[in-house]
Amino acid sequence: MHIALDVMGGDRGPLELVAGAVQAVRDFSLEVTLLGDEGQIKQALKHHSISDSRLHTVHTSQTISMIEPPFEAVRKKRDASVVVAFELLKKGEVDAVVSAGNSGATMAAAIRKLGRLKQISRPGIASIFPTQKNPLVMMDVGANVDCRPQHLFQFGVMASAFSTVLLGIDKPRIGLLSIGEEGGKGNLLVKNSHELFQKSSLNFIGNVEGRDTFLGDVDVIVCDGFVGNVCLKVSEGLAETVLAMLGEEISKSFSAKMGYLLAKQAFANFKKRVDYAEYGGAPLLGLNGTGIVCHGRSNAKAIKNAIKVAIEMVRNKVNDHIIELLPEDNFTDVNGHQQEEDAELPVEGS
Amino acid sequence: MHIALDVMGGDRGPLELVAGAVQAVRDFSLEVTLLGDEGQIKQALKHHSISDSRLHTVHTSQTISMIEPPFEAVRKKRDASVVVAFELLKKGEVDAVVSAGNSGATMAAAIRKLGRLKQISRPGIASIFPTQKNPLVMMDVGANVDCRPQHLFQFGVMASAFSTVLLGIDKPRIGLLSIGEEGGKGNLLVKNSHELFQKSSLNFIGNVEGRDTFLGDVDVIVCDGFVGNVCLKVSEGLAETVLAMLGEEISKSFSAKMGYLLAKQAFANFKKRVDYAEYGGAPLLGLNGTGIVCHGRSNAKAIKNAIKVAIEMVRNKVNDHIIELLPEDNFTDVNGHQQEEDAELPVEGS
Repeated sequence: MHIALDVMGGDRGPLELVAGAVQAVRDFSLEVTLLGDEGQIKQALKHHSISDSRLHTVHTSQTISMIEPPFEAVRKKRDASVVVAFELLKKGEVDAVVSAGNSGATMAAAIRKLGRLKQISRPGIASIFPTQKNPLVMMDVGANVDCRPQHLFQFGVMASAFSTVLLGIDKPRIGLLSIGEEGGKGNLLVKNSHELFQKSSLNFIGNVEGRDTFLGDVDVIVCDGFVGNVCLKVSEGLAETVLAMLGEEISKSFSAKMGYLLAKQAFANFKKRVDYAEYGGAPLLGLNGTGIVCHGRSNAKAIKNAIKVAIEMVRNKVNDHIIELLPEDNFTDVNGHQQEEDAELPVEGS
Repeated sequence: MHIALDVMGGDRGPLELVAGAVQAVRDFSLEVTLLGDEGQIKQALKHHSISDSRLHTVHTSQTISMIEPPFEAVRKKRDASVVVAFELLKKGEVDAVVSAGNSGATMAAAIRKLGRLKQISRPGIASIFPTQKNPLVMMDVGANVDCRPQHLFQFGVMASAFSTVLLGIDKPRIGLLSIGEEGGKGNLLVKNSHELFQKSSLNFIGNVEGRDTFLGDVDVIVCDGFVGNVCLKVSEGLAETVLAMLGEEISKSFSAKMGYLLAKQAFANFKKRVDYAEYGGAPLLGLNGTGIVCHGRSNAKAIKNAIKVAIEMVRNKVNDHIIELLPEDNFTDVNGHQQEEDAELPVEGS
């Protein structure tokens, strides 16, 4: 198993990302190719007493920043670390790509180099949420902001396959994110998607509401990428705010501070349960290949765990499972839109 | 000042709602008319040693449940408590309506009886969120699930007026909820709305992301009702989950339990800061009159505070302020859609 890691993405710089790769080769049986500025990678490797033949370096001269327009940047910067990483995957030199950079650019590079999985109109980004019970997979969380019902249906299929293969959930319960539980509730997109799910053989449990997200009574939540991304960011913001406000109140009194010290382990356990780093990153699904995009703030542990998820996706053939789950007539009613989507997603060579 | 309270809505039943009305007439200078089943109201009033002439009862024979389709229910049930409440407001017998029932039906009854404010295409529901600094107003949180840019612009105007009049914020900073801060990011609706805000005289600060919601660096967040409702429900669900998971971890060890006892006041202070009951309810904006819809779970305190917000909205003429803030050409590019919207929002007599 061989993973390509783009070390130029991420808010913490190559040092942290390289540390994640070092942990990964120590903990798992695999090779990692680090892509980015060779000087910076060498510098970062000096911090580790490792001269492991399982760590390789590929020098790239360009990087894509967090604010560059994804498709344009990927088209113009042919030697960007993330672009070269997917080029290696296309050539079969690595098995999967992990990046903590601009997620739009990561997706754009993946689509351009790998192309879409047969029968999938729109690849998307899935995200793993902690809940009060089992982890939940939400899709899409940012790749496709304006969707049609067929796209939402395919997100459901892909996230369901991922949930089964990676989280071991046999028939994942799939919910359509809406603003009321009855089938007639929601916006036009949700109403029109509802029937597609109902007709399918998926384990569709109907509409779910935002509050169901964290209860753990649904395994897969489907939504368009705009709504999904807003959910993700609202959740991150709120979790931080709750802890910040609690911390503020605790720091106001001596007895509360003592109390916090006594309960410190409980707080630490709680933080571990909701730590994004436990899940590593967000899988890109619907591609001819395997890619993971990590949070910009990812620490070494998150990178190591993202690499682990990438290995498991490859080993357990999540893409084969997606194709198996897709109904045969999946594409019939989107044939007319095929060209439009190709135009939007510039896949190289297709 | 005279408020109509629909006591048949709400998960806790008339007892709790009547208790809220009793607290309100004790704390503020006003009259309250209770609408609902006379027997139940009389029964509820027996719990209070009050024979106040400022509390009135109007018997109604019908109620609208939480799951009834709003417009249909309002059309058919002419003697439903919420419908009669807005009828009283239309006749000028009360100054505002407060309900904790089906929010869609409350909005439908309000539109049917009062009609829309001149120049407003779509009335909406605003919600007040606690943040790390000042409270934030988000609009729309559920009344309009499929919107056009002009609707979002008007939500911005209405929420801004509310923020100024009720929260005392002079030039509220308005943000458009999106999935990236640059103007070019977001779905089609957001991209097309961006320019409308930029051209206006509102204090528009550009796109904001979900995580900005709770930081307190923006005073008004504008979004369509689908996204807003999802945000609201995700936030409620996550806040509950965080506290439930923390509680679970704390209960696992003796020292943590002792710690919690010492820090109990800090937890109580935190809960008070984020308590929905402090803000009372969600104002319906864009109507020829004043209405508030409360959370189904509202306790007496929430009802009392919702009544307080209703009084302040009337006293400070929030509707006049909305009209002042609207640019004169506000309606020009939606004229063509006027009829369609009337069809969707069946306003009585218009």
